[in-house]
Amino acid sequence: MEFSAYFPMWDKLTAAQQKRLADSITPQTAPKGTIVHNGSLDCVGLLLIQSGQLRSYILSDEGREVTLYRLFDRDLCLFSASCMMPSIQFDLVIEAEKDTGYWLIPTDVYKSIMEQSAPLANYTNEIMASRFSEVMWLIEQIMWKSLDKRVASFLLEEAAIEGTNLLKLTHETIANHLGTHREVISRMLKYFQNERMVRLTRGTVEIIAEDKLQELQKV
Amino acid sequence: MEFSAYFPMWDKLTAAQQKRLADSITPQTAPKGTIVHNGSLDCVGLLLIQSGQLRSYILSDEGREVTLYRLFDRDLCLFSASCMMPSIQFDLVIEAEKDTGYWLIPTDVYKSIMEQSAPLANYTNEIMASRFSEVMWLIEQIMWKSLDKRVASFLLEEAAIEGTNLLKLTHETIANHLGTHREVISRMLKYFQNERMVRLTRGTVEIIAEDKLQELQKV
Repeated sequence: MEFSAYFPMWDKLTAAQQKRLADSITPQTAPKGTIVHNGSLDCVGLLLIQSGQLRSYILSDEGREVTLYRLFDRDLCLFSASCMMPSIQFDLVIEAEKDTGYWLIPTDVYKSIMEQSAPLANYTNEIMASRFSEVMWLIEQIMWKSLDKRVASFLLEEAAIEGTNLLKLTHETIANHLGTHREVISRMLKYFQNERMVRLTRGTVEIIAEDKLQELQKV
Repeated sequence: MEFSAYFPMWDKLTAAQQKRLADSITPQTAPKGTIVHNGSLDCVGLLLIQSGQLRSYILSDEGREVTLYRLFDRDLCLFSASCMMPSIQFDLVIEAEKDTGYWLIPTDVYKSIMEQSAPLANYTNEIMASRFSEVMWLIEQIMWKSLDKRVASFLLEEAAIEGTNLLKLTHETIANHLGTHREVISRMLKYFQNERMVRLTRGTVEIIAEDKLQELQKV
């Protein structure tokens, strides 16, 4: 598949803008586990995902993580080019959660086209609003939802993404996603197991009563 | 002062766009305490603040609040026109925290100019990125900072905004800003008083040792 088929506003760009973009991109691959962007330490450019999965998270001084959102096929990753906009005043880390193939778009090329093109600027606005919405959802979860509901939601979301109820997840990994400690997650999962909602083995969590988890996650 | 002196991208608009904007705006006032926007219940338009102070917050089902950010003179309030962008998928409430004068810009007028004007679209992007940054800062506070530090930061911020160390604040109000319960705040303030950082009277909190609060709020 061609870049032009993936880039959403392609048809709204001028021929000169299309050429400039096409000449500047490079196809890249990031094996699972690669940190593709690390806060203010780099400004690698925008990433248009061909296939794979990226995870965006924040990191505390003590190394605790909270997952903000995930990006999938055809998503455009803006914040790996956060130097593009002076008002983006936060640092996040972007990690390949699966083997990921993407096109790298240089920050300066994207920025200069966006400054000329109202369609591209408005599209960028919509992407920003989508990510903003995901982060607002997260705040609501953190503020109003108890942890049992958040763990239930997380497991159901993982199952939907992976297409299986047998999840390869350590307690540490779940804790990192939710910004809490391993011990807290272990206690919660043991409770879920006692309630016959999940079955635990070393390194896996198997959902055995999806309906009960669905029920639990409701507010 | 004229609207054109307040509207940031005025000089980058065409004469036709300027005229369309100028013909559509209406000056409004909101006395302190007015709810100027209430989640998905309305889409009143964009507010360009001439003078005053707006507070943006989210509300849980049980009525608990968390302050997201404040807007001051010359700020443009986007989210009172959240229907402008389909990707804005969250509800927030905007309240006049002081008597506020503003120009109301109709959503459809702003939107149609933004769709044509790259400068206005890019400016809107920067505003969105600023608000996003404030919300990211809040997430970091909630996730990584203990409540004593958050209360200290809140009191110092209030003192800076009001220009006085004698703050007219009830414990209920502070709890609403920080998304917690009145009892929790009362306990914390009593601790602050014992540590000789504040002096409490009915309806006021006086900061008597700013340096100690400054020290406390550091991570």
